[in-house]
Amino acid sequence: MFRFENMSQKAVVLLSGGLDSSVTAYIAHDMGYNLAALSIDYNQAHVRELDSARKIAQHLNVLDHKIISLDLSLFGGSALLTSTNTQIPTKISIDSIGKKIPPTYVPARNTIFLSLALAYAETIQADAIFIGVTAADYSGYPDCRPAFIEAFQTLANIATKKTIEHNLISIKTPIISDSKRIIIQKGQALQVPFQDTWSCYQGKEKACGECETCLLRLKGFNEASLPDPLPYETYPKWYKVH
Amino acid sequence: MFRFENMSQKAVVLLSGGLDSSVTAYIAHDMGYNLAALSIDYNQAHVRELDSARKIAQHLNVLDHKIISLDLSLFGGSALLTSTNTQIPTKISIDSIGKKIPPTYVPARNTIFLSLALAYAETIQADAIFIGVTAADYSGYPDCRPAFIEAFQTLANIATKKTIEHNLISIKTPIISDSKRIIIQKGQALQVPFQDTWSCYQGKEKACGECETCLLRLKGFNEASLPDPLPYETYPKWYKVH
Repeated sequence: MFRFENMSQKAVVLLSGGLDSSVTAYIAHDMGYNLAALSIDYNQAHVRELDSARKIAQHLNVLDHKIISLDLSLFGGSALLTSTNTQIPTKISIDSIGKKIPPTYVPARNTIFLSLALAYAETIQADAIFIGVTAADYSGYPDCRPAFIEAFQTLANIATKKTIEHNLISIKTPIISDSKRIIIQKGQALQVPFQDTWSCYQGKEKACGECETCLLRLKGFNEASLPDPLPYETYPKWYKVH
Repeated sequence: MFRFENMSQKAVVLLSGGLDSSVTAYIAHDMGYNLAALSIDYNQAHVRELDSARKIAQHLNVLDHKIISLDLSLFGGSALLTSTNTQIPTKISIDSIGKKIPPTYVPARNTIFLSLALAYAETIQADAIFIGVTAADYSGYPDCRPAFIEAFQTLANIATKKTIEHNLISIKTPIISDSKRIIIQKGQALQVPFQDTWSCYQGKEKACGECETCLLRLKGFNEASLPDPLPYETYPKWYKVH
């Protein structure tokens, strides 16, 4: 018998509120998944990204949105955590990005986030986890690469009651090979409300326009010939306002 | 040149305060590691195990002991979490343990805990992570098996800045093949203060003597011909008080 409800599978999406995870959530939604969103309050300097996560989750009318607190600043080791004295680098050159792992790297972040998503997916019997990692325009983070995702998939297959009973949880990375331009174009096609996403690591009222994530985002909008609707403190010289 | 200080390596030990993790911590200490302990307050029903973790950490004079809060009861899905209506099974037969995954299974728990230990190990530049999983007398948990640990090691090798720069973080499981009897005998040899460990899932004033972890613990002491110094509400019929 044909059962319509079986066509719609459940998935957990890791939703930071940034551009990449928001576009990823829209892609998952467009693929027909019923989404449960998971955000993590880890004492990131740009905690305001969680307001964006809430807005995107609301736009997508997700089944549930869990925001879990996990104070990674207890460990330290990153400029992105509130506990640190290391500054988030600004006034950097766009060409220097991706050459080495920057101080905004957070130890084992995606390993931790995927583990939490795995727990959530198992609990709600979801078939997939969506994560908006991108290895193309990537900022040098080791846990954004395809090899890392493959290793996590291998682990997940044997790590839980659900998966060892052969109900696998598939790790989906729909934008992993995409440049920021392509991600923005995909988001545009799916009507992602870019004004409700947040990328800037500084997390102030306006985006700084100087940190690595602002630069990558603005470069992407530039190359997609689209305006970034977010307000910026300053724009890099090469940015053309469309 | 021979440098004495290089002989002492740093390790993170996942310390729940239970028998297995406490013996594991003593083994790591005996191996000459400088230990940093990590405990997780995940809204477990037996949160009092964390008091035991504090005592063991203090006995071992660890470099640091971090207790991180991560409310896994937000996801639910386990009798071991305070949010659930599922009861921790008691009055079970010792022979039924290990036949199937029990309701005390916590989704993806060791994946999450190892991920957190990985972040901590990277931050303090530790060379190893010790975890007291045991697959012999095991309670049917998928994330206590050697294959799971191997898959996590493969993941860890490529997941962090430290490990991709070839300073590997080795996952050590010194009691993974040991029965509870052997674990207790190893603990006895290392003078583990068993009275300061805690196993019972119920987490009341006395150990219940009826849940799966009490039964496994008492069976182990029985087989080791040693008395368990913890106070129990009740003892199973087969328990010989030594």
